[in-house]
Amino acid sequence: MIKIAIDAMGGDYAPKEQVLGAMLAVKQINDIELTLYGNETEIKKYLTDNTRINIEHCENVIPMDEKNPIAAIRKNKDASMVRALQSVSDEINEAIVSSGATQALIAGAHIIVRRMEGFKRTAIAPVIPTVDHRKAILLDTGANLQIRPEHMLQQAYFATIYANKILDINNPRVGLINIGTEKSKGRDLDKEVYQLFSETNLFEFAGNIEPKTILEPDCDILISDGFTANIVMKTIEGTAKSMGKLLKENLMSSFFGKLAGLLAKKNLREFKKQLSAEEIGGAVIYGLKKPVIKAQGASKAYGFYNAIRQAANIVRKEVFKIVEDYIKEESGETFGQETE
Amino acid sequence: MIKIAIDAMGGDYAPKEQVLGAMLAVKQINDIELTLYGNETEIKKYLTDNTRINIEHCENVIPMDEKNPIAAIRKNKDASMVRALQSVSDEINEAIVSSGATQALIAGAHIIVRRMEGFKRTAIAPVIPTVDHRKAILLDTGANLQIRPEHMLQQAYFATIYANKILDINNPRVGLINIGTEKSKGRDLDKEVYQLFSETNLFEFAGNIEPKTILEPDCDILISDGFTANIVMKTIEGTAKSMGKLLKENLMSSFFGKLAGLLAKKNLREFKKQLSAEEIGGAVIYGLKKPVIKAQGASKAYGFYNAIRQAANIVRKEVFKIVEDYIKEESGETFGQETE
Repeated sequence: MIKIAIDAMGGDYAPKEQVLGAMLAVKQINDIELTLYGNETEIKKYLTDNTRINIEHCENVIPMDEKNPIAAIRKNKDASMVRALQSVSDEINEAIVSSGATQALIAGAHIIVRRMEGFKRTAIAPVIPTVDHRKAILLDTGANLQIRPEHMLQQAYFATIYANKILDINNPRVGLINIGTEKSKGRDLDKEVYQLFSETNLFEFAGNIEPKTILEPDCDILISDGFTANIVMKTIEGTAKSMGKLLKENLMSSFFGKLAGLLAKKNLREFKKQLSAEEIGGAVIYGLKKPVIKAQGASKAYGFYNAIRQAANIVRKEVFKIVEDYIKEESGETFGQETE
Repeated sequence: MIKIAIDAMGGDYAPKEQVLGAMLAVKQINDIELTLYGNETEIKKYLTDNTRINIEHCENVIPMDEKNPIAAIRKNKDASMVRALQSVSDEINEAIVSSGATQALIAGAHIIVRRMEGFKRTAIAPVIPTVDHRKAILLDTGANLQIRPEHMLQQAYFATIYANKILDINNPRVGLINIGTEKSKGRDLDKEVYQLFSETNLFEFAGNIEPKTILEPDCDILISDGFTANIVMKTIEGTAKSMGKLLKENLMSSFFGKLAGLLAKKNLREFKKQLSAEEIGGAVIYGLKKPVIKAQGASKAYGFYNAIRQAANIVRKEVFKIVEDYIKEESGETFGQETE
């Protein structure tokens, strides 16, 4: 049995959607056992079947708009997120899924679960859909604003293992997000990363990728520093949302448009689904000791179920162990000896 | 008469679309006189009316895929782009419009037209459409990867004058592109810019803007460094293009979808137009001695005409003069005394 901790109280629609998602998960996936951390009374309102689902009652919750995530994690030992993270650190569970406050989860993951030995900088790595119906990994979308090329090499290596084991991509290709395709393009960091990635045997380097092709990139993994990749992710989100709005408005502005809109409703829904995070699951934090999966704050049951499925897959395929073993074996040869 | 230099040979469809665009411009705008720089024989193939249009024959062209822009500008004294830029520097013309190779135009503008006195870092600033049918300025989309807060203050000031005089926006508001709205967010540069912009009297500061709202921002001017803003621009472009493709594919995958697509064709065209650069004109390079307008490489006549209209407007409203006078008067008080 794969044992997964669920932060039942984190999320815009918690605990309802988290509980429904958990029930869906145990129904669909045979080898998992879930423990829901949260308010027992609240959870029981929605829990109609407790096969392979346990409850660990927690008094507190880290609010979604928590302003001081580090302090909140340190103080609220009985918050559902903290207890769930602690259970993973204590090896009671093998992974955790939470749709709680992002910054608090990241802080808590670092404080409680801690970094993998030898892994210098963690990265947050959501999977984004591509127009040609593949999946691509985008990182780092938020953990480290200041970073060095060697750190990005580790992160990219982690991403290739993830892409191979979880997304079933053979020989995943890594592309560097940049303002032009030539190797001379970009900031000093980008040029150094280009050089380092060109020389590595860890993965195939696809060169610089301009965001003009961000949703149909000639690679499987898109990497940049934690500021740039976050900006890219939010720009995709903003553009998609605004375009959807504009399209709807245009369709509704004429009789034929309205008719077309009605006829196309099902197709538009399909279209939205393809871009939806619900289909993809959550963002994984690379480089911790154990898998911490951040599901979207606005997750509904289906999206949360997908994040649980993803967590189970990561444990089953031993993604974290593979990377950890490799780094131990390398003991600094590939990724540099420098201490922090 | 406002005298404008036209690089007739730069652009994917040059000189045809440039010549047609120029003829449209003199027809629509009474107070302009254009000089087309380029191959006279080629130009005359399309020039059916030469009212207020002159031709200056040039032997050479800077190719669209020029790899060594600086060398190309220095060597090809008789290239249409170089001659057109030179005419502005010599005060024969008051502005130049080109859809030629971007990097060559930027290099040429700096070498030939030169920076405005006291203006530390030029910026490229396209106007982007917003979903709520306003216009917003995005900068710097490519001139300076390394920049300091004081340089961005100058650029933002230039943008507010531009927004006010050319886009008719009263009290334009400047927003800093960032990964979160709180003032503590972002890199050191972003935090310093936040502080500086909060204290300035030059314009109203709207705080940090997350790209989740990039096409419906709570401001009129979106600013970041030349790397980040370029990445944002290309991500918008890529997302819009891919979404359009996905939508079309979805619509065409079913009978109802196909019918809807046919019915909605006009609306979809309208929709595309709203996002189109053709409607907006070109990107202006802020901080040069004279206006240099970069029209899209793929400009058709209508798009090129809009870029000419924009150039005429900039000259008519004395945008560059207003900024130049202000900076002279300030002589370093606001923007810092440091030399480069």
